[in-house]
Amino acid sequence: MAIQKPTIPKGTRDFSPHEMIRRNYIFRTIEEVFKKSGYQPLETPAMENLSILLGKYGEEGDRLLFRIINSGDFLSGIDPDELTKMSARDLSKRISGKGLRYDLTVPFARFVVQHRNEITLPFKRYQIQPVWRADRPQKGRYREFYQCDVDVIGSTSLLNEAELVQIMDEVFNKLNVPVEIRLNNRKVLAGISEMMGVPEKMKDITIAMDKLEKVGPERVTEEIREKGIPPEAVAKLKPILTFVGTNGEKISFLNDMLASSAIGMEGMKDLKKLLNYLEKSDLSVNYTLDLTLARGLDYYTGTIFEVVATEWQIGSICGGGRYDDLAGIFGMPGVSGVGVSFGADRIYDVMLNTGKFPEAIESSAPVLFLNFGEEEAGYILPLLKQIRQLGIAAELYPDPVKIKKQMNYANQNQVPVVVFIGKDELNEKMAGIKIMATGEQEKVSFDQLMEKLVALTG
Amino acid sequence: MAIQKPTIPKGTRDFSPHEMIRRNYIFRTIEEVFKKSGYQPLETPAMENLSILLGKYGEEGDRLLFRIINSGDFLSGIDPDELTKMSARDLSKRISGKGLRYDLTVPFARFVVQHRNEITLPFKRYQIQPVWRADRPQKGRYREFYQCDVDVIGSTSLLNEAELVQIMDEVFNKLNVPVEIRLNNRKVLAGISEMMGVPEKMKDITIAMDKLEKVGPERVTEEIREKGIPPEAVAKLKPILTFVGTNGEKISFLNDMLASSAIGMEGMKDLKKLLNYLEKSDLSVNYTLDLTLARGLDYYTGTIFEVVATEWQIGSICGGGRYDDLAGIFGMPGVSGVGVSFGADRIYDVMLNTGKFPEAIESSAPVLFLNFGEEEAGYILPLLKQIRQLGIAAELYPDPVKIKKQMNYANQNQVPVVVFIGKDELNEKMAGIKIMATGEQEKVSFDQLMEKLVALTG
Repeated sequence: MAIQKPTIPKGTRDFSPHEMIRRNYIFRTIEEVFKKSGYQPLETPAMENLSILLGKYGEEGDRLLFRIINSGDFLSGIDPDELTKMSARDLSKRISGKGLRYDLTVPFARFVVQHRNEITLPFKRYQIQPVWRADRPQKGRYREFYQCDVDVIGSTSLLNEAELVQIMDEVFNKLNVPVEIRLNNRKVLAGISEMMGVPEKMKDITIAMDKLEKVGPERVTEEIREKGIPPEAVAKLKPILTFVGTNGEKISFLNDMLASSAIGMEGMKDLKKLLNYLEKSDLSVNYTLDLTLARGLDYYTGTIFEVVATEWQIGSICGGGRYDDLAGIFGMPGVSGVGVSFGADRIYDVMLNTGKFPEAIESSAPVLFLNFGEEEAGYILPLLKQIRQLGIAAELYPDPVKIKKQMNYANQNQVPVVVFIGKDELNEKMAGIKIMATGEQEKVSFDQLMEKLVALTG
Repeated sequence: MAIQKPTIPKGTRDFSPHEMIRRNYIFRTIEEVFKKSGYQPLETPAMENLSILLGKYGEEGDRLLFRIINSGDFLSGIDPDELTKMSARDLSKRISGKGLRYDLTVPFARFVVQHRNEITLPFKRYQIQPVWRADRPQKGRYREFYQCDVDVIGSTSLLNEAELVQIMDEVFNKLNVPVEIRLNNRKVLAGISEMMGVPEKMKDITIAMDKLEKVGPERVTEEIREKGIPPEAVAKLKPILTFVGTNGEKISFLNDMLASSAIGMEGMKDLKKLLNYLEKSDLSVNYTLDLTLARGLDYYTGTIFEVVATEWQIGSICGGGRYDDLAGIFGMPGVSGVGVSFGADRIYDVMLNTGKFPEAIESSAPVLFLNFGEEEAGYILPLLKQIRQLGIAAELYPDPVKIKKQMNYANQNQVPVVVFIGKDELNEKMAGIKIMATGEQEKVSFDQLMEKLVALTG
C-alpha cells in the first residue's frame, strides 16, 4: 500500500492527553455545577435530518451546515439531463438528507417536541457535545468544537434566570476565572427603538449597538444613521450609549426614558425583578446591567446574558438568553425557555493564558514500577491490583529494557513517583522509591509501601 | 413556517436524562479503571480525511462510511458531460473528501504517526467517542454508537496483555456484571492451519471456526471442506474443535499438536507466558483459553481477547487483540500494539436486563424546594447556594403554581426530598421536609436544615 502522509481535516483538532486532562477538568467542573442545580444530562445524535436544521440559523447557517451524502446509490432517480443543469445547491438537496448538528439548541427543541409526552415541564437539561460548522477556519475558530448548554423550558419565572446566573457564578468561581456577567433584556431594546419612534428598526439598532465596545458611540450612531433612521431619533439614543452608572442608576435612568413604551416597561420590570433575585443570591461575581448588550441570535425575546473574562480579552466566554417560541417551529408553540452556553474552547484559552489550571490535574500520571525482568514483574502484578484498589493510578513498565530508557519514560510522562523492586529489593523485601519532583530516594518495607504511596500521591 | 414533524435519522438515538445517567455510570466506571492503569485520554475529530479511512475496513467498510459533501461549490471543476456518466461511487469521490470515523483504532494509528515526535513510546491511551457506520439499522445495531478503546503501542511485552485482562476484570467487577474472558492467539491459529498442511487457508479456517459456538463442529468442518480443504486436513482439525479441558490441559494438548509448526509454537509460548502472568495477577474473573476464538479483524497478529456476559446472551461485550503493524499504513512500520474495545451499548443492555444499575445512580435527582411566592423564594435563594456548596443537588420550583402541580413534578423526576418553606414556616423559622420514598414528613429548624439534608441525601 502506498504510504500516506496523515493529516486531519482543516479546522479540526486532535486533543492530546495533556490537553484532554485540562479540557476534562473544565467539562467536569461545569457538569458538576449543572447537576447540583437540578439540570439533567441529555445527548442527541451528531446527525439530524436536514429538515430539522435548515432555516434555523439564517442563510449563512444553512451554508455552513456539513451535509452527509445519502447511503447507497444516491444518484438513482435523478435524470442525467437534469443532473447537468443542477447547481451544487440543488444537487445537495437531492443527494443529502442529513447534516451534522450546528448547535445544541435546535436539537434540544426537536427533542422536547418529539418526546413531549415523556417529559415533565419545567424541563431542565444540560448537554455537552461537539457541534460542527463549515466556517472558514482561523485562530480560535474551529469547524468542530464543544458547546456546554444548560436550559430550562416550560417556565417563564425569572427565578430561572437567577439560577443561571448562580450557575455562571459558581462555574467561574470553581475554575478560578474572574469574570463579569452582563445582563440586558430584549424587551428593553424593543422599548428603546419604540422610544426613538422607529420600532421597526429594532434589529438594525441592536446590531449597531452590539458593536459599541469595539467601535465606540460615534461609529454606532453613524451606522444607525446610515440605516435611514432620522437624526432626531438617533439623538434620543445617544444618552443611552454613553450612560455611566451603577445598576440602580441605570434602572432609574431607563425607567424615565422608556416610560412611554409598554414593552420597554415590561423589560424594565423583568430586569428589576431579576436584579432583586440576584441581590439575594449571595453571589461573588460582578454583574452589570449593560444597556447596549444585544446578542446576535434572533430567537431571544427576554433576558440576555454574556460573560467576559476580566483578566484576558477573548470576547464572551458564556452567553445566552430567554426565547419564547423555539419549539414553535416544530409544532409546539408557547413553550418559553431560557438557557446559556459555555464556550469551553475560549475558557480553555483564558485559563491557559492566565495560568489557572491547578497543578493537581497536571500531575495525574501514574506511579511507575520499573521493570527488572520476569521474576520481579511476577511479583509486582498483584501489588498493582492492590495499589489501584486504593484509588492510586499505577503501572509497570512493560519491557525489561535499560533503566535509563524507563526513567526517560517517567520524565516524559511526568510520573510523580517511581518504584523499583529488583533482585536485591526482592531479597530484602524492600521497595525503592524515587520522588521525581525532588529527586529524593528512599527504601521502604513491602508492608509500608502502600501507605507510603497513598501519602505521596494523595 | 410550516409545522414539521420532528424525527431523527434512522439508526440514531436520543439519550434521555434517565438513560444518560446510566450510560455515564458505565463510561465513568470504565474511564476510572483505564486511568488507574496509566492510560491517558485522547480525542480525535469526528471527521477524518477519506484518504485516512478508505481501504482500512475492507470493501464493506468503505461502503459503510458516512461521507461529507465538500463545502462551497463542490461541482465546480466537474465537466457536465462527465457528470452524467458518473456512478454514485465516482461522483462521491469527486465531491467528498471527508468521512465520519468508523472506529477509534485507525484514527489512533493516524494520531500516533502524525504526532510521532511528541509522544513517548510505549504510548498508552484510552478514547471514548462515538463512531458512525451506515449499516442497515436493526435491533441492537445503530448507525451512531460509542466505543471505549484502550490501547498501548510501542511494546511487544505480554505484560500489556496481562494489564488489559486486569482492566477487563476490574471493569466488569465494578459494574457487577459476571463475565468470562476468552483468550487465543492468532499465531496458534496460523499454527493450526500449518499443522493441517494448508497454511494458505488460515483465513477460511478461522472464519469457519469463529462460528463454532453458533453452528457446532459438524457445520464448521462442512464449511471448511467446502473451501476445498482436503478431508485428511479437516480430520486433523476435528479434535481441536471438540477438545474439552482446563487451560492447562488445552496447552499440553496443543503443544503436542503444533510441535511441528514454528509459528504455532511461538503462539503457544505467548499463551503460556500470558497465562502465567494472569495466574499471578490475583484476578477474580474466569478466563479460558478458547482454541476456536478467531475475531474477525484482519489486523490482529498475536493475542486475541473476547468477553461474554454469563448471565445474558448478547454476543461479545468487549474484545480486541494485538496488531503488529497498524501504523505501517501511515508510514511508521514495526510499531506493535495491543488493545481492547468495550461495547458500551451491549454492556448497557446486559446491565438493564439483569438489573445491575445501582439504585444510588437512579435517585440522583435534586432536593426540591416548593415555591410559595416571591417572599419565600427570596429567602430560599441564598439557602440553595449553601446547600449546593455541601455537594447536594437542590432546586427551587420556578413558578408559584399550585402545590399539587409542584408535587407532581417532584414525583415525575424522582425527587428524593421536598422542602417547604411557606409563610408559616418563615415565621416559625422552621422548614417542612417530606421524604418522598416513605411519605414521612417532619419540621426542622432552619439551623438543622443543612444537617438534615446531608443525612437524607448522603
